[in-house]
Amino acid sequence: MTKQVSPLRSGSIIGILGTGQLGRMLSLAGAQLGFKTHIYGPEENAPASEVSWRTTTADYRDETALTHFAESVEVVTYEFENVPQETANFLSQFVPVRPPVRALDIAQDRLTEKNFLKECGLSVAGFQNIETYEDLQEVHARFDGQGIIKTRRFGYDGKGQWRMTPETDLKALLNEIDNRPAICEAFIPFDGEVSVVAARSTSGQIATFDMAENIHENHILRHSFVPTGLADSLKQQAADMARLLLTELDYVGVLTLEIFVCQDKLLINEIAPRVHNSGHWTIDACATDQFEQHMRAVAGWPLGSPNRQYDAVMTNLLGTEINHIDSLAEDEMTKIHFYGKHEAKAGRKMGHVSRLFKVGHRPDREGYKLF
Amino acid sequence: MTKQVSPLRSGSIIGILGTGQLGRMLSLAGAQLGFKTHIYGPEENAPASEVSWRTTTADYRDETALTHFAESVEVVTYEFENVPQETANFLSQFVPVRPPVRALDIAQDRLTEKNFLKECGLSVAGFQNIETYEDLQEVHARFDGQGIIKTRRFGYDGKGQWRMTPETDLKALLNEIDNRPAICEAFIPFDGEVSVVAARSTSGQIATFDMAENIHENHILRHSFVPTGLADSLKQQAADMARLLLTELDYVGVLTLEIFVCQDKLLINEIAPRVHNSGHWTIDACATDQFEQHMRAVAGWPLGSPNRQYDAVMTNLLGTEINHIDSLAEDEMTKIHFYGKHEAKAGRKMGHVSRLFKVGHRPDREGYKLF
Repeated sequence: MTKQVSPLRSGSIIGILGTGQLGRMLSLAGAQLGFKTHIYGPEENAPASEVSWRTTTADYRDETALTHFAESVEVVTYEFENVPQETANFLSQFVPVRPPVRALDIAQDRLTEKNFLKECGLSVAGFQNIETYEDLQEVHARFDGQGIIKTRRFGYDGKGQWRMTPETDLKALLNEIDNRPAICEAFIPFDGEVSVVAARSTSGQIATFDMAENIHENHILRHSFVPTGLADSLKQQAADMARLLLTELDYVGVLTLEIFVCQDKLLINEIAPRVHNSGHWTIDACATDQFEQHMRAVAGWPLGSPNRQYDAVMTNLLGTEINHIDSLAEDEMTKIHFYGKHEAKAGRKMGHVSRLFKVGHRPDREGYKLF
Repeated sequence: MTKQVSPLRSGSIIGILGTGQLGRMLSLAGAQLGFKTHIYGPEENAPASEVSWRTTTADYRDETALTHFAESVEVVTYEFENVPQETANFLSQFVPVRPPVRALDIAQDRLTEKNFLKECGLSVAGFQNIETYEDLQEVHARFDGQGIIKTRRFGYDGKGQWRMTPETDLKALLNEIDNRPAICEAFIPFDGEVSVVAARSTSGQIATFDMAENIHENHILRHSFVPTGLADSLKQQAADMARLLLTELDYVGVLTLEIFVCQDKLLINEIAPRVHNSGHWTIDACATDQFEQHMRAVAGWPLGSPNRQYDAVMTNLLGTEINHIDSLAEDEMTKIHFYGKHEAKAGRKMGHVSRLFKVGHRPDREGYKLF
């Protein structure tokens, strides 16, 4: 029997699995709504702990720690999709887990995800499961040698991905994959990558943020531009995709769709059952941001307005880029967010900035530079 | 020798004296900028502690605790003006205290404050120091029997205030004052009360938020309406007053001026060397809010833009009013802020909401009701 949670009152405790910057920003948004957050994860001194009411530092499979955690909270959510399913299933014996465990299930495995999206009638790039050398040969022929191999699980920021070209040595590639479950996706010569962040409440209310166009550098998100230059019909199509998935999954919380734009077609690249880096611009440019929206949904509250009052360019700050406070803060419309991480390792996401512009005045993405 | 602090880097620790909702919101704003906050105050389980990196629960005169506190932080600020001066002076041996101790000095004593404002050439209501029965008699004659007696120290939300009328029994009034230092202010038949919240950085940069018109009920702030209906010339005059005071005090941080509007004249009622309840609307309606602005200033950062993108009505939620989540959240442009307080005592500020409107569309204050 799970506890009743709708709507949670001020002072209620929300559990968050995961201790990184997304958990930190969820915690801050929750605090504005009067909630205490209890953070759970294996890392010591993590970004989310500094701003949360309580932290449990324990392994995701530590059932004693999980039981205590569940007993202390009214509802559990998560900041990343690689929370072990066993963990989520175990917790859901005691408290509601939002978004639903099924969304984790789907998002954790690229093959399950692609099949699910296809079953929902949504467009995805061609894909094929890879287990053997013969699978690689077959897909190489089927996709004219143009593909991306991705491990089915635990890939992020380009990790666990290999480009396949007509020249690729398939034996060497198989060695690289090293027996990890993988799929091959047809290589899509896309015109751009966009994302849509949307939320659904316990009562089925849906709110969708404006889409962002995302620019990656070295497989890491560098900039998100809002609004995109897409036609209204494509924007509507993306919002409809989000609505369909949220409803199909009986979803509660924020869901992100990463989408390839191929001329006048949208192909879903992947979905993330959580707040997303490409939605960080909402903190400063929208009436309600993705973090607040997620916490409202998880707490059984009605959603807030996703209305956007500025154009925005969000840029991730990597490594020592966060040390340049004077140049970052020179423009009074540049909103600064640092995550309080201790070590500025090269390529590590240490913070982000959102530059705000009057609606209709965002800079062109060609040649855009933060500094 | 005090530590160098400009500009503080991500992960730096900022000390905050005071543990209430203002400290809580300062802490949340600081966290978005990557700062850790160390809260200091005598109360256990206070609102600010839940979201801060560390809390020291100790008396303001505990020099051992204060020394440890000072050693752990880069700079100290405060959420309320009744921090003992000895505390601020003691701490300033070790770390910068921002805003400056002189501002505390002035704001803590209504007589000192009025004299300071007068010396700055600013308009205030007539006032007189009250020590004896003869003082009361004299001021009763001078102000035609129309005055407000206020204790010089520690008054808030109407506490330590008495109305003096032509009929007042001055002996009984003297008994009420009970030997506390007090002043009498001439009773002003004002048309409205407004406030202006402004900030100054370590480099002398000044940013001023739009003024709010404040409606009190039972001596407690109930609503703030933004914008005010004041003439531009009066708005400019109020901003000039703020600039003058910030400069005169070599101020760093947020300063609030409470002002009476008497036809086409502005009289300063009081100043608060801190973020202010009448500035809470800035959280949702401005590019940078008062809490972030204060933390930026205190950290030696440049200020952000105080640009306002919505009209707003802020309403304090008292006692059990915060339990009506569904009615509060019904309108998706109502931004909800709860302070996580444990006991919903009658009249206690438990949270606030800011209703947002398109610029030019704020409701009239006559007959305005939240529910």
